[in-house]
This record gives sequence, C-alpha cells and structure tokens, in this order.
Amino acid sequence: MPNPSVPSALVRYRPAVEDALRAAVGAGNDPLVRTARYVLGWEDESGRPSSAGGKRIRPALCLLAAEAVGGTADDALAGAAAVELVHNFSLVHDDVQDRDAERHHRPTVWALFGEAQAINAGDFLFALAVRTLARAPVPSDRRTAALDALDRAVMEMIRGQWLDISFESRAEISVDEYLEMVRGKTGALLGASLEVGALLAGADASLAGGLRRWGEEIGLAFQAHDDYLGVWGDPEQTGKSNTSDIARRKKTLPVVIALGHPSAGPAVREAYSKRELTADDIAAVVAALERAGADGRCRELARRHEARARELLDALALAPHWREELSAIGEFLVERSS
Amino acid sequence: MPNPSVPSALVRYRPAVEDALRAAVGAGNDPLVRTARYVLGWEDESGRPSSAGGKRIRPALCLLAAEAVGGTADDALAGAAAVELVHNFSLVHDDVQDRDAERHHRPTVWALFGEAQAINAGDFLFALAVRTLARAPVPSDRRTAALDALDRAVMEMIRGQWLDISFESRAEISVDEYLEMVRGKTGALLGASLEVGALLAGADASLAGGLRRWGEEIGLAFQAHDDYLGVWGDPEQTGKSNTSDIARRKKTLPVVIALGHPSAGPAVREAYSKRELTADDIAAVVAALERAGADGRCRELARRHEARARELLDALALAPHWREELSAIGEFLVERSS
Repeated sequence: MPNPSVPSALVRYRPAVEDALRAAVGAGNDPLVRTARYVLGWEDESGRPSSAGGKRIRPALCLLAAEAVGGTADDALAGAAAVELVHNFSLVHDDVQDRDAERHHRPTVWALFGEAQAINAGDFLFALAVRTLARAPVPSDRRTAALDALDRAVMEMIRGQWLDISFESRAEISVDEYLEMVRGKTGALLGASLEVGALLAGADASLAGGLRRWGEEIGLAFQAHDDYLGVWGDPEQTGKSNTSDIARRKKTLPVVIALGHPSAGPAVREAYSKRELTADDIAAVVAALERAGADGRCRELARRHEARARELLDALALAPHWREELSAIGEFLVERSS
Repeated sequence: MPNPSVPSALVRYRPAVEDALRAAVGAGNDPLVRTARYVLGWEDESGRPSSAGGKRIRPALCLLAAEAVGGTADDALAGAAAVELVHNFSLVHDDVQDRDAERHHRPTVWALFGEAQAINAGDFLFALAVRTLARAPVPSDRRTAALDALDRAVMEMIRGQWLDISFESRAEISVDEYLEMVRGKTGALLGASLEVGALLAGADASLAGGLRRWGEEIGLAFQAHDDYLGVWGDPEQTGKSNTSDIARRKKTLPVVIALGHPSAGPAVREAYSKRELTADDIAAVVAALERAGADGRCRELARRHEARARELLDALALAPHWREELSAIGEFLVERSS
C-alpha cells in the first residue's frame, strides 16, 4: 500500500505554525527555553540551527478546525502552538518514564541533561502551553473555554499514560482497556487540537465537541494501525525496526489481543517473562500473534474507528471542502505505511 | 525565641480552603484522583481517611489578598485551591528529583508507585490547578489574568528548580545566584498566591503586583531563615534533624556562603567530595560554616528581605487591618523557630 501524499493542509499551515511556536517559546539563553527549542527540533544539542521538528499534525488540525467553523486560522494560532507544546511536554516525560534514550535519531532530554532536568523541561513546556493559550488574542470567554478543553485533554492524556504504565506489571489486559488507554494517551489531544481551534474561532460547544470526537476516533484508528506496523510494517518504509517493540516487551495492541488467546497467550507470556529476548523468542512471539489473528484484528479495529470517525464527520455542519481536508489528514494518519 | 502563634487568618480560612480543594479534586476511584487525595493529606496509602495536610499558607494568602483589595474570599476560592495544587505538584516532582522517600513522615508518591507514576501524579495536579482556575466563577477576563499570573509563577518555579539541580554539580555558587534560585523556587508561588487572589477579586495589575512582590520577599526571608534552622535550629523545636542537610551534601544558603570563604570553602568542598559523611565530617562542615560567619549572614539576609517586604507592604493602598494580617503571616513564616 503506497503512502498517501502529505495532505496540503499540513504544508499550507506549516510556516504559520512554526512562527506561532517560535513566538510562544521565545528567544533568549535560559536553559529551559533552549531545551524547548531543542525539543521542537530547531536546534541541536549545542544550540546550532537544525530542522528536526515533527509533522505538526496537531497544530494543523487546530487551524483547520478554526477555518472549518467559519473563523480564521489567525484566531487559533495560539491554540496551535499550545497543542504542539502539550504534545512535546508529554513526549519529554514519556521518554523519562520509558527510559527511551533516542527519539527521531536524536538523544532525548533526559539522556542529555538527566531525568531531574527532563522532568523540569516537560513541566516547562506544559506551563508554556498554558501561558500561550491564556494570552490568545481573542475574547477572554473563548480563551477560557479553549483552556478548559485543552486542560481536560491533558488530564485524559495523563490518565492514559498512568494506565499504560500500569499495564507493564499486569499479565492480562482486555482489548477494551487497551483502547481506553489509547483514547486517553493519543486520542484526547488529537481531539482537543480540533476543539481548541474551533472554540478560539467562536464555534459553539456542540460543533467543537463533534470535531473533538472525530479527532479521538482518528487517534484510536491511528494507534491501532501504528501498533500493527510495529510488528508487520516494512522497516524500509516505516524507518523503524519491526522487532524492537517485542524485544522491549511492549504490550502493544497485537500483544494484548494475543494475551487473551488460549494458545497464543501462554506463548507470549513465556517469552515476555524473560529478561532478554533472543531472535528465536521474538520469532515465537510473532508466530503467536499471528496464530491469535492479531494482525487482522488490529486492521479491523483501525478500520472500525476510521469508519466511526467518518460517520461523525458526515454528521457535522461543515462545508464539503473542509470535510475533505479533514478526511485527507485522517487518511494520512491511518493509512500510511510508514 | 518562642514560636509566634498561628495567625488567625490561617485558622479562619482553613475550612473554606479544604472545601475548595475537595471540590477541585473531586471524588471517585480514579488512581490519579486517589493519589491527589493522598498528597493533600486526606487519605493514607490505603484510602483510609487521614489528616496530614500542610498549613495551607498559600491558599490563605490568596483569600486574604482578595479581601484586602476589597473583594470577597468567595471570589478567590478557585485560586486558593489552584495555588495549593501547584504547590503539591511541585512537591511531588521535587521528591522524584531529589529521591526523597519521605515527606512529613509519610512515603512520597514515587516511593509508593514508582517514579514514572509520580511524574504522572505531579502532571495531573498541575492540570487540576489549571482546570480549577479556568473555571473560577468570576468574569472571564479576571480568570485569564489570574491564570496568566499563576502560570508565570510556575515557570519561575521551574526555573528555580532547574537552577537548584544545576547547583549540585557546581563547585562554586554565588549568594546572588542562590537567592535568584530561591526567588523562583519559593518566592514566585508565594507571591503569585496573593496576586491570583487580588486579580480574581478585581484588583488592578499594580496593586496585585505589589502584593506579589511582598510575597516574593517573604519567600526569600523564609528560605534564608529555614536554611539557617537546617543547621542551627533546635531539632526539639523544628522537629527535624539539623545534620541531615549536610549529611545529604545539600547546598543550602550557609553552605553557599561558606563556599565563597577563603578558608571555610576548601573545608566544605573536601567534606562534600566524600560519598558518605561521618559525624566528624559533619562537625567539620558546621565549624567551617561558623568560621565563615554563615549563621550571622543567613540571619542578616532573612532580616533584609523581611525589611524589604515591610517597605513594600507599607507602600500599598491597604486598610491597616489587612496590612496587620499579612504582616502576621509574614512573621509566622520568617520568625518561627520550628
């Protein structure tokens, strides 16, 4: 399956998003501000210019939602910066929690400055997001509504993260529990990105909430597909190993599905009880996942949530043009092979 | 020196503060909400009722400021809850960063649930604070002004914390740098507690800012005195060891003062270069601190910032009654012997 091309909205909004983010973070030599610039990909470890930023999907959704509800992208620029800052706050703390020393081929913040300072750096990014949104140049009732929406998503994201970490020490996890975790950890912020943009542009709570629910479902579909690619993706295309999730004994969706299967479950549990997994152990886990039909089940779940997203989108009072743009981003997230 | 009696404002506001905090945190069985109740002292590790909460100084300052500027305590209840939540967020992350396994004779969050979940628990308390303030039942322009003030304090607090951690690996720290750290880590939130209360009650930025600056100076005086007590306090009265700061090689104000002294500096550095300090090492450090005159210098710095606070307070347009109440809390913080 070929990669869908990058949706035009991601390209179109990119310069405005980068400007809004740079304005939110600011210049100056403060080590926390420098760390924020590093995390956002503008500088390398030594403060030299670099361009390692992510795709900025959440800010693009925020600006798109503002335009789709009849406002302007300008209304939502502070929101676009804020959702990206929250996303990066969560990545910095995630990397401490998971002891991941690299992200996108660069050392993570804790790998550079230690865990204590990485906790500070994450806290700082969250505080920057709040400041940015509290100062959005729109009427103050829109500002507080958007802040409340973003903050609720942060709370759901943290709940998802708590759940994810609690899974590490559990032998059985139901698919429903896994999806509840993903709804918090991935869905909440994707959904809030749209909701915040819509609220800043003056949309009513019902339309803004509808856009949020679309984003949440896309988040679920995205994660189910991403977990599928983590085992059955082509490393040539995804750019990442398809054995590392298993080697690190991660409880991704295929693993959760297999854990509930009568013959595959014990095989996965046995392999995951080892300190280090050999290549043979990994191959045995993949075989067990396939015996449990986890590949098909992942794709089915991704399709189901994508279909649910489509229904939600069709029910919203949006001009066809904006519906198509949103669909294109949804497809880009869910149907990509990398 | 006898302990000043507990200021009446702390007693008077306490029930309203607890109610506002309970409303902000909510009930329910979510592990993050339960952890918040534990951190705030309402429950023990097993969820049984307990009463281990702190003095709630920051919320009392918040409500006092609201009344002092001519508003009502009700205007500022959400702010009172928010500043206490932020304070507890910082304690939870601090304990992870410092690897402190106990606080007020109870296990810290990371000691109970691990570092990863403690990071989540701290993040959650910060998010709760933002939600609480974003929903304050006052006009939305007051809400956003208060949020902006609280959030700026959070950023300064994190800067102070970053600086404090960076001191651990530095051989020399100037007294000015130390005070800059304290202004962020301790002063910013104490100051913002007043500012947030004043803004929620409708005060103009100048009066609210004046109250904030008073709180910052009180914070500096408090910390200088607290660092003094950490070495020369009477453990019978303070309830904590006066050797543990040194045993843990903490760079408190007396140590920072001594590090800059020609003969005391090398002695402290030598002791602090050891992995474990013996009782003799600790005695040698205390002798060096006294040789450097650090005891007198700490008290002088506490007095200087207290005097500065007094000047700031005198310059504010407040009725004498409120000025006296604020002074009483300031004295309680700075002149206590425990």
